[in-house]
Amino acid sequence: MTAATRREHDLLGDRDVPADAYWGVHTLRATENFPITGTPISAHPHLIGALAAVKEAAALANEELGLLEPRKAAAIVRACREIRAGALHDQFVVDVIQGGAGTSTNMNANEVIANRALELLGHAKGQYTHLHPNEDVNLGQSTNDVYPTAVKIATVFGVHALLDAMAVLQDAFAAKAVEFRDVLKMGRTQLQDAVPMTLGQEFSSYAVMLDEDRSRLAEAVELIHEINLGATAIGTGLNAPAGYAESVRRHLCAITGLPLVTAADLVEATQDCGAFVQMSGVLKRVAVKLSKSCNDLRLLSSGPRAGLGEINLPPVQAGSSIMPGKVNPVIPEVVNQVAFEVIGNDVTITMAAEAGQLQLNAFEPVILHSLSGSLTHLRAACLTLAERCVAGITANTEALRATVENSIGLVTALNPHIGYTAATDIAKEALATGRGVAELVLEKGLLPADTLAGLLRPEVLAGTGEG
Amino acid sequence: MTAATRREHDLLGDRDVPADAYWGVHTLRATENFPITGTPISAHPHLIGALAAVKEAAALANEELGLLEPRKAAAIVRACREIRAGALHDQFVVDVIQGGAGTSTNMNANEVIANRALELLGHAKGQYTHLHPNEDVNLGQSTNDVYPTAVKIATVFGVHALLDAMAVLQDAFAAKAVEFRDVLKMGRTQLQDAVPMTLGQEFSSYAVMLDEDRSRLAEAVELIHEINLGATAIGTGLNAPAGYAESVRRHLCAITGLPLVTAADLVEATQDCGAFVQMSGVLKRVAVKLSKSCNDLRLLSSGPRAGLGEINLPPVQAGSSIMPGKVNPVIPEVVNQVAFEVIGNDVTITMAAEAGQLQLNAFEPVILHSLSGSLTHLRAACLTLAERCVAGITANTEALRATVENSIGLVTALNPHIGYTAATDIAKEALATGRGVAELVLEKGLLPADTLAGLLRPEVLAGTGEG
Amino acid sequence: MTAATRREHDLLGDRDVPADAYWGVHTLRATENFPITGTPISAHPHLIGALAAVKEAAALANEELGLLEPRKAAAIVRACREIRAGALHDQFVVDVIQGGAGTSTNMNANEVIANRALELLGHAKGQYTHLHPNEDVNLGQSTNDVYPTAVKIATVFGVHALLDAMAVLQDAFAAKAVEFRDVLKMGRTQLQDAVPMTLGQEFSSYAVMLDEDRSRLAEAVELIHEINLGATAIGTGLNAPAGYAESVRRHLCAITGLPLVTAADLVEATQDCGAFVQMSGVLKRVAVKLSKSCNDLRLLSSGPRAGLGEINLPPVQAGSSIMPGKVNPVIPEVVNQVAFEVIGNDVTITMAAEAGQLQLNAFEPVILHSLSGSLTHLRAACLTLAERCVAGITANTEALRATVENSIGLVTALNPHIGYTAATDIAKEALATGRGVAELVLEKGLLPADTLAGLLRPEVLAGTGEG
Amino acid sequence: MTAATRREHDLLGDRDVPADAYWGVHTLRATENFPITGTPISAHPHLIGALAAVKEAAALANEELGLLEPRKAAAIVRACREIRAGALHDQFVVDVIQGGAGTSTNMNANEVIANRALELLGHAKGQYTHLHPNEDVNLGQSTNDVYPTAVKIATVFGVHALLDAMAVLQDAFAAKAVEFRDVLKMGRTQLQDAVPMTLGQEFSSYAVMLDEDRSRLAEAVELIHEINLGATAIGTGLNAPAGYAESVRRHLCAITGLPLVTAADLVEATQDCGAFVQMSGVLKRVAVKLSKSCNDLRLLSSGPRAGLGEINLPPVQAGSSIMPGKVNPVIPEVVNQVAFEVIGNDVTITMAAEAGQLQLNAFEPVILHSLSGSLTHLRAACLTLAERCVAGITANTEALRATVENSIGLVTALNPHIGYTAATDIAKEALATGRGVAELVLEKGLLPADTLAGLLRPEVLAGTGEG
Repeated sequence: MTAATRREHDLLGDRDVPADAYWGVHTLRATENFPITGTPISAHPHLIGALAAVKEAAALANEELGLLEPRKAAAIVRACREIRAGALHDQFVVDVIQGGAGTSTNMNANEVIANRALELLGHAKGQYTHLHPNEDVNLGQSTNDVYPTAVKIATVFGVHALLDAMAVLQDAFAAKAVEFRDVLKMGRTQLQDAVPMTLGQEFSSYAVMLDEDRSRLAEAVELIHEINLGATAIGTGLNAPAGYAESVRRHLCAITGLPLVTAADLVEATQDCGAFVQMSGVLKRVAVKLSKSCNDLRLLSSGPRAGLGEINLPPVQAGSSIMPGKVNPVIPEVVNQVAFEVIGNDVTITMAAEAGQLQLNAFEPVILHSLSGSLTHLRAACLTLAERCVAGITANTEALRATVENSIGLVTALNPHIGYTAATDIAKEALATGRGVAELVLEKGLLPADTLAGLLRPEVLAGTGEG
Repeated sequence: MTAATRREHDLLGDRDVPADAYWGVHTLRATENFPITGTPISAHPHLIGALAAVKEAAALANEELGLLEPRKAAAIVRACREIRAGALHDQFVVDVIQGGAGTSTNMNANEVIANRALELLGHAKGQYTHLHPNEDVNLGQSTNDVYPTAVKIATVFGVHALLDAMAVLQDAFAAKAVEFRDVLKMGRTQLQDAVPMTLGQEFSSYAVMLDEDRSRLAEAVELIHEINLGATAIGTGLNAPAGYAESVRRHLCAITGLPLVTAADLVEATQDCGAFVQMSGVLKRVAVKLSKSCNDLRLLSSGPRAGLGEINLPPVQAGSSIMPGKVNPVIPEVVNQVAFEVIGNDVTITMAAEAGQLQLNAFEPVILHSLSGSLTHLRAACLTLAERCVAGITANTEALRATVENSIGLVTALNPHIGYTAATDIAKEALATGRGVAELVLEKGLLPADTLAGLLRPEVLAGTGEG
Repeated sequence: MTAATRREHDLLGDRDVPADAYWGVHTLRATENFPITGTPISAHPHLIGALAAVKEAAALANEELGLLEPRKAAAIVRACREIRAGALHDQFVVDVIQGGAGTSTNMNANEVIANRALELLGHAKGQYTHLHPNEDVNLGQSTNDVYPTAVKIATVFGVHALLDAMAVLQDAFAAKAVEFRDVLKMGRTQLQDAVPMTLGQEFSSYAVMLDEDRSRLAEAVELIHEINLGATAIGTGLNAPAGYAESVRRHLCAITGLPLVTAADLVEATQDCGAFVQMSGVLKRVAVKLSKSCNDLRLLSSGPRAGLGEINLPPVQAGSSIMPGKVNPVIPEVVNQVAFEVIGNDVTITMAAEAGQLQLNAFEPVILHSLSGSLTHLRAACLTLAERCVAGITANTEALRATVENSIGLVTALNPHIGYTAATDIAKEALATGRGVAELVLEKGLLPADTLAGLLRPEVLAGTGEG
Repeated sequence: MTAATRREHDLLGDRDVPADAYWGVHTLRATENFPITGTPISAHPHLIGALAAVKEAAALANEELGLLEPRKAAAIVRACREIRAGALHDQFVVDVIQGGAGTSTNMNANEVIANRALELLGHAKGQYTHLHPNEDVNLGQSTNDVYPTAVKIATVFGVHALLDAMAVLQDAFAAKAVEFRDVLKMGRTQLQDAVPMTLGQEFSSYAVMLDEDRSRLAEAVELIHEINLGATAIGTGLNAPAGYAESVRRHLCAITGLPLVTAADLVEATQDCGAFVQMSGVLKRVAVKLSKSCNDLRLLSSGPRAGLGEINLPPVQAGSSIMPGKVNPVIPEVVNQVAFEVIGNDVTITMAAEAGQLQLNAFEPVILHSLSGSLTHLRAACLTLAERCVAGITANTEALRATVENSIGLVTALNPHIGYTAATDIAKEALATGRGVAELVLEKGLLPADTLAGLLRPEVLAGTGEG
């Protein structure tokens, strides 16, 4: 028995596609031409939703301009809404890495929408004389304006999801900053003991970093709202009817809820990948600082006995088959790796953007793939870090206080009171003998005990109180 | 109705796992801890096969040393062979990006192999008193020697597959080099017309590049044959019995057919990712040159009328919905994108390798993931380029010959015969008037017609004949 | 005869420094410790000026707070002003790549300023009892707040200079856009002939890209105005007197003319390199698009006979010793290379930023060095591209028009008038026979001659007129 | 008064050059065209020496083939030898980043050598009728074969110098490995306490890594010995006389002492930058591991009281102006930064190599610049690390031994003797109570005291003795 098929036709001839497939001949050829990663574009659901939104907006604009029959437009709109609601994603089968500047992705969308719309109109799949993937679904469009627009919308959705996850992580760090606000510890520069601070200040820094990064990301995503629908092939708008660009933009804003604007210079906008490069650069910034924070968490929780042992990360899985009781900082470690991936993706995106030529960049598919990967993996990393690590961190308060009391760095706070020279002598003697700074200061009668106690009060040392 | 489950136990307490799962509690926790990419490690089948090979070798070594009952060893070996033959890969479910230095991957393998071995011994899954994932399957091992060893074997397999694909592509270019050996054309430096050559020489260069890259890759893969089995936790071999390292290596060589060697210094070998960095560097070299070749193919086939139009790539799919008859170089374009990805992966791998600390690199999972991606995508790119593009390339022979005859660069060949000054005058006049070099030389009586014809014979110009 | 020296002292003992050197013992040790590149920090004059500005502001603030004698303050201020005016830069001799988080750069500045101030006060160099590098020039400061602040100010200066150069280049492109506004040519996507446009539109795109990039850069530089003076060692402000942070900021604003703000969270600000990563990311964006534009210029000027030959770059030097009359696109080529360098620098900066630990990033010197290199080289590249290349570009107008008339892509414009099917047939016949689209349309009587002429009017095709 | 000048002429007209300059009009134009970095090519002395070697070999080959008068050849050879001995390097003034594929560097060399040879022949500089930069010094050559050959020779020299420096560093680590061979300490994986080892094993790892890297580098440099002299413009050897390629290679081997070989396929060799990409990849490997080693040194020496405090780096300069007595790990920090630079350079080189087009890569100047920077900075980093840091490292032996005795990881060694279950119970109790493993084992009577003492002997734990 052979599987049921239907015959479709394109520039290169006839091909049989599975009868139950919503995709058609162009998609079939693309799957054969790009057997690269095995990962279909449905792995990027924001992109699928964004494509459907663009096609829905185009159908409404074309109907409005009298170019598309209302009946056809209604069927296309309904198919797009189903896809945006999550249906038919398994029909988006072309490879995430593909040649053709996104043409195959656009064709895949046109075919799936057309065939679903045909069904809705009571026709069999493949009966394109009733509603055509290219002439109706793609009417007034070119891959070169549809695809970049969809990539931008998908990116906006992805950034919003990431911003939410970053807020969760920020809150987790901020909660710990409050919890640890009175935990005195030694600050370190260049890994050498410096001067006292609180563990709360340390965790607050991680929260503040995230807050700043969220602001930067929110600024960067604004630049992604500029679209080039109406540009058609190269931005000259050839064959796009008057009023189309404005109409489709208006509908797309309504559908997506995003304040999209049409680029002032469509020729430039059609070839320019600068916004993606910049967005990736900001994601790299986020990755760099997440990675730095995770490096710190791993360092501060090193031990349990031969490490810094300042904090304890909650155990989430057994760490070793050979070493009884060993627990490892696996959550920060996975976040580090996501950061390394995002940084690598940035190089990929940079090279792809630089390789654009003349009126188009043919390499946007790998830009989308890398950018989408960075966004979704960073989001997952933030959430898992917040929930499975930061929320459960505890402090070894007593040991931390002891390191401050035992520290030579305390002497820095006495500089203005006993002078730099005496302070240096105390520091040298403390280092040589292993004795404490306060003990030596008292022994030498450099300061009265109550004055010394006042100078070494935690809130004074850490600069957190009025002193 | 609830799905059937079984209860398992670890350091952190009890958990229910699906009754039909071959994986157990450690894998369950790992899937919860690392919900990052959604891609399971089974996406890297060479790794799954390599893990099974390592576990099989370890079982045989342990049996040989009298540490594992023959009955248990036989069951483990049989389970491993099934996995190496392709079975149970869907049970390798932990995420490709994971913390823990590969511990979760190792645990996943231990659990799947143990449960399949239990079945083979007539026990139910989860009856670990009869055969234990950790104490039997992982006996004498640590993630820190198992995982790097498996990654190396997987990499060797991946490189072999890539080498084969590169050979296919090399042959495709070499066949064209022969086909085009008499097609005279202008060579270009800095995109400016230089001196004549043949299209065969041009395509031969692509074949030679691949041949050289294959040699370099074959050299680099040699360095990957050094393993650290027997190192246990940090390379000191604590708790590994005498003779184990040699025995397990011997069995692993027999199982894989690879000439593996045990590192001379296991402490160094356990922490060192240098071989992966270097391998990735060589893959980057391959990517750079593949990308350059594809850039050339796209440039040479630009047109059809307003481009160089020297060669024609076979059409493999329609290029545009808006521009009738347009066909695009989609296959070289997809190869370019794979190259950009490989170059980005190299940065990821570099950062992960640099981040290793003290006796271990915790970030090998992302190294494996990136390296495996580079290998498999490059392989796919080479095959699709060979089969769907290079094999079908045709030359516009007449037009190419005309550019040579029409070229000013011809005058370079006359330098030794009419002198540099006269040659420069001819060049200037040709450029200003649009006339041909040969025509001007004859008109000015600088050379007799037959001498000139001899100097301009294709094989002389292109340096391919005895002249 | 031995050269005259003076003896100085530090933590490690006594050392002789040249009597005429303004730098002292700390600088001497740093030059011995970091013999890495041979390039002194004076290679970054914006940094030297910024350091002097910070030291001047600190002296004024300390005087204002009654911590520094007016006589000393005045001498320090005068020394700083001399340096800001360009004097003594040759005394800034520590290597651009140095350990110590910038401590050696800060020490070098303290010593040079102190010794020059001593001279101004009538003392010999080295007479630190009268005015001390550390206790007076560095009063109330730490490298950890001075150095990042100076790097930020230097970066702002560097960005302003780059923005000016980008404006020059933008103007050069914009002037050509006007000059070429009526030059009709074929637009290309994926290097394949697409639809007509004007050369003016093409050059306008380059101008628009630069305009957008300037906006992005202007936004990014805003983020660099946040400083952490007053943080002292780790941001807790230990030993910084009340009012100091605000006073020094106010003076620094006045000195530099920049609207600097003090970071809200000084602990976070002292360890955070995010602003540098983001700035470098935006410079990478600029580099990517400059490189793309230069790739286009080289491609469009390829030839003179076997290339696209659309435009001519002005010859600026002889191109070849062996090929008479050859001229190469050397200016775009040098810009490409600067872009590659900037992209590499971004990776260096990324890694350095990620490597920060706990309360400080020790690797800011290489961040400054790379960032400053990117800024100054991009600036030079923009200016040389504008002045030595773009300004002299000419168009091969007639040949360009011929490619449009000869093009198959013309048929796209007839789609709405003769239908997609007829258009495809015309396209196929044109490709097969080498004949022109207009000729075929007329021959087949598909459109009247005057209608056809109207549809093919340049301003209609290029979308530049009202049609 | 005007400075004395002489007038020179090229394709673009007449220009005055300083009378005392050895360089001429082509160099003058190049300095005007490429005002990018301010760094002249003389910053890469290996390149200058290599260019002189190539020119010397070419003169000898041309003389041998009867193409160059012996008198001229002798003068050229003598000029080249002077340059190779270090003379006239200040005359190599073109910018390190330049367009033109190295043409300006080649022209600079031709002019300097010609003018020095003219002097040697008793003529004034600029009297090119007696000996011509292009027609005599450059005879039979093209930038496209001269420049890549010189870059390769320069790279070989640079690698040799680096290999020597790496050997110095390796010896320094190896000496410490011997010195610390009995210092017992805790090994760590994922920054968590693992099992015991010796500090000698740890330092030995650094020595072994360097030894391996030296081997890899020595292998990689072999690939750089393939040259393309005789290729002329594009590899077809147009105008190169029979026998020239072999003769010039033979002379160049004699001059440099290197076993150079001529590429089998000169067309391929002229366009291929693969060997540089691979070399840079290996340098990246070296950088990654140096950086990792320095990260470890900084971590192990963290403290003095609130850090790991395992080792002490020798103080080489004061660390802080605000914190009395603070000493920082400035030497490892500078090495880290060199590593970050090398990794960034690798991206620059990768992009430049990928950007080659058709028969030539126009971007070799930035490849040379980056590669040469990586080589010389890595060399300096290795030497300064060996001499100013590693050689002076001391161990805190008693504290290290205490961490082992106090460690929970000890229990791993008891696994085979008291069983995994009992070991886990001991581990848990030790962690909860803060008591020692040995103490608990004895208290519970799990092992006799002498057996326990035997199991915990340092050489057993660290796997360094026969046990």
